[in-house]
Amino acid sequence: MSDETKLEVRGPIVKFREPQIEMAHGAGGKASRRLVEGLFAPLLFGSQRQPLNDAAHVSIDGARMAITADSFVVKPLVFPGGSIGELAVNGTVNDLAVSGARAEIMVVTFVLEAGLSTVTLQAQIQAMADAAQKANVRIVGGDTKVVEHGKADGMYITTTGIGGLLDGIEVDARSVHPGDCILLSGPVGDHGITILLARGDLDLEGDLQWDTRSILPLVDAVARAAGSGVRWMRDPTRGGVATSLNELARDCGMGMVLFEDAIPVRDGVRGACELLGLDPLHIANEGQFLAIVSPELANAALTALQSTPGGEEARIIGEIRDEPAGAVLVTTLYGGSRIVDMLVGDPLPRIC
Amino acid sequence: MSDETKLEVRGPIVKFREPQIEMAHGAGGKASRRLVEGLFAPLLFGSQRQPLNDAAHVSIDGARMAITADSFVVKPLVFPGGSIGELAVNGTVNDLAVSGARAEIMVVTFVLEAGLSTVTLQAQIQAMADAAQKANVRIVGGDTKVVEHGKADGMYITTTGIGGLLDGIEVDARSVHPGDCILLSGPVGDHGITILLARGDLDLEGDLQWDTRSILPLVDAVARAAGSGVRWMRDPTRGGVATSLNELARDCGMGMVLFEDAIPVRDGVRGACELLGLDPLHIANEGQFLAIVSPELANAALTALQSTPGGEEARIIGEIRDEPAGAVLVTTLYGGSRIVDMLVGDPLPRIC
Repeated sequence: MSDETKLEVRGPIVKFREPQIEMAHGAGGKASRRLVEGLFAPLLFGSQRQPLNDAAHVSIDGARMAITADSFVVKPLVFPGGSIGELAVNGTVNDLAVSGARAEIMVVTFVLEAGLSTVTLQAQIQAMADAAQKANVRIVGGDTKVVEHGKADGMYITTTGIGGLLDGIEVDARSVHPGDCILLSGPVGDHGITILLARGDLDLEGDLQWDTRSILPLVDAVARAAGSGVRWMRDPTRGGVATSLNELARDCGMGMVLFEDAIPVRDGVRGACELLGLDPLHIANEGQFLAIVSPELANAALTALQSTPGGEEARIIGEIRDEPAGAVLVTTLYGGSRIVDMLVGDPLPRIC
Repeated sequence: MSDETKLEVRGPIVKFREPQIEMAHGAGGKASRRLVEGLFAPLLFGSQRQPLNDAAHVSIDGARMAITADSFVVKPLVFPGGSIGELAVNGTVNDLAVSGARAEIMVVTFVLEAGLSTVTLQAQIQAMADAAQKANVRIVGGDTKVVEHGKADGMYITTTGIGGLLDGIEVDARSVHPGDCILLSGPVGDHGITILLARGDLDLEGDLQWDTRSILPLVDAVARAAGSGVRWMRDPTRGGVATSLNELARDCGMGMVLFEDAIPVRDGVRGACELLGLDPLHIANEGQFLAIVSPELANAALTALQSTPGGEEARIIGEIRDEPAGAVLVTTLYGGSRIVDMLVGDPLPRIC
């Protein structure tokens, strides 16, 4: 009953000194990390140095498995290409996948707002059922609460997924080495910018859409092609690629170098980011993942990804180096370079 | 991966025809049942006849275990004798206990309201940590989201618990027989009335308080004393004792007779119920449970309960009969009798 992956985190101990919770604490960047490492982890996990993993590996009765939980508070409930129900299933499937596990069962709870139309609710339950069937996950139970009108943006959904471990891969920041390649499964920022435009708060229009999806087939392809060459994976949701890689840099104590011209970004995402002064590397993604793969197997992993449906736009976007230790450097199109930090503040609230 | 307890529910198929969600759909009574059986179950579980169990029994890699999930939306966050954090841990431990399982690990997610004070949050995280330690449960992971000020009543907490099965007992409505005794672990209604008074909406005062607690030691005592004589257990939370027993009556097709003078009710609860026109059997409980035990082992189970700290007020409150099939009859102090139905409507919103 006690063998979840524990890393010794090498970064500084974080203190949580803010007097109250702000939106930024939910945005997945530095403020979120302060909240988790400075308040939740010391009290709940008995350690200030618990890494922020997507899923915990545990064993019950001798069976090893992975478990993950997420609450979804996306607004609007339905956006071009997806909806909260789909996202709630696929987000959990994907957190398990990047921890090296195949989702098998799921429990779901709903906090519903009084006055929510049955048609809206039914559509989201159906979306969950469809996504679960597609991902081959069984929903085995759940709970429903109702809160007063005005309290819950229609609905909040929480999903917990449990799955068995994939054979032959071990996701562990300690196994990352200089020279390892950084793979990305597809274009960055589509999900975050799609939600931003769908909210209509900004006077921007675009024809972006992003289908939430299970990345398990893509993770499976990488695992089959590169096996023990797969060092680490993560789905760069809140806080984007930059935050995920900064967390890894901090956890493994090494540096990351990204080649800007190798990072796939759609024109619509690039345009919106330029207008708004955002970095696409900070925009949230769903249905994409980062994989660190040993150099001799990186091309095999890339080929496997690109030949799996939905992985055609995968790229090797950078590599692990000794320096800059604990940081992420982007070499730009024009030969320069810049450090990209974790997300600070909250440019895109409520995207998952 | 596929052997959760499935009962063939004998009652009528429920349809969900309401155009929108109302508070009553979260109150745990008839409206909740219509929502779950008429909308959630057919879409998510592929069946309109899934029973409403506290936890699902599944196996992963050959290991059998129980899993349960609950969202907690109680208002106020702190009430005399307890708080949302304690409740979130103990409620999940207790749902596992009455399904015949010992909680081992837990994942927790928070939806926080922007503007929530850190002091308030920290107190609830500490309450969770303390309750988890007391119940010998490890919290292995979680997630935090933040929503705008005005939403989420400070915080909503969702907990998922997983545990191994207790040896020697099998909780199954199909095993209930006429003549079996109905045990109750302590007084009814303390939690619901405590919350009601703490909300201060009503011009009532009382000195009631109710400490939320893990019932696993009490369930353990019953399991050791009565073993395979334990047919069925449930913690009668939302909807109270009357709703839980009506659900059992429906699931097993038999009748229940309760002896009103044997049901423990504190004076403060009885007084508040009389003033408000409520039936104590409809008031929510936390930290109590019902057990159906075969007649030859019922006294042993009762003695074991009463000699376990916190079980001193346990009673045998009734028995299973062939008639009235599918219903719950209460024989009153004065020799009369009345049918007690499931909770209808929502007299006590947001109690868990």
